[in-house]
Amino acid sequence: MQNRLSYITLGVDSLEDSLKFYRDGLGLHTEGIIGNEIDNGAVVFFKLQSNLVLALWPRKSMSEECNVPLREPDPSGFMLAHNVGSPEEVDTLMEQAKQAGAKIVRPAAKMNWGGYGGCFQDPDQHLWEIVWNPDYDL
Amino acid sequence: MQNRLSYITLGVDSLEDSLKFYRDGLGLHTEGIIGNEIDNGAVVFFKLQSNLVLALWPRKSMSEECNVPLREPDPSGFMLAHNVGSPEEVDTLMEQAKQAGAKIVRPAAKMNWGGYGGCFQDPDQHLWEIVWNPDYDL
Repeated sequence: MQNRLSYITLGVDSLEDSLKFYRDGLGLHTEGIIGNEIDNGAVVFFKLQSNLVLALWPRKSMSEECNVPLREPDPSGFMLAHNVGSPEEVDTLMEQAKQAGAKIVRPAAKMNWGGYGGCFQDPDQHLWEIVWNPDYDL
Repeated sequence: MQNRLSYITLGVDSLEDSLKFYRDGLGLHTEGIIGNEIDNGAVVFFKLQSNLVLALWPRKSMSEECNVPLREPDPSGFMLAHNVGSPEEVDTLMEQAKQAGAKIVRPAAKMNWGGYGGCFQDPDQHLWEIVWNPDYDL
């Protein structure tokens, strides 16, 4: 396997609610829900950097198409991080997430390795970190 | 929020077992476990394309540092996809994953949208899709 990732797909309970959170709340660009004509095909794509795509897909579709059980969300299973250019940008984005309905699980603060960041959960309990890292090139 | 992602962190039960699976089994490049000198700092980084990093971090560390509960893994919560250049490459990588100890949950097959792919779970039940998409530029 090469050190390359193509899609990150989040299993969601409601495609509409998650679209609203990520597009209208956080401001990510997307063409909205596509694929309704295919069974379990309804999906939302956010094109990110370098051929990487963040997708929203119903948990039920993922369970059926990939033969895995539907269980309770597991907030400590994974985390997505969005690095920004300054501590002030962290504060701004954390506030934006809160206004969009995110649950703030760790308010923005200095971190023991020298950065500054906070964590929130999206409507499906998926964990995000908004962080400024002085050693990370955006 | 900009359409950009920095880190994808997988919560794992054993950093050593997951390192073995991803580095020795799947062949991803990494410097191995770093950060042991910091509380909850032990982590494995795989540098991917365009400043994107795939990280392995103990579920316990994620739970403690981000104030989220430890629960049973939820296989339908998210999926990572690794696109490859041909159906043959899908077969090769699925076999490699199987040899590395992955659980094959959907053997490679033609898909209803025209692609070819299969799904497996890593040692922590995290879901991966290996897929060839004729419309996707690697």
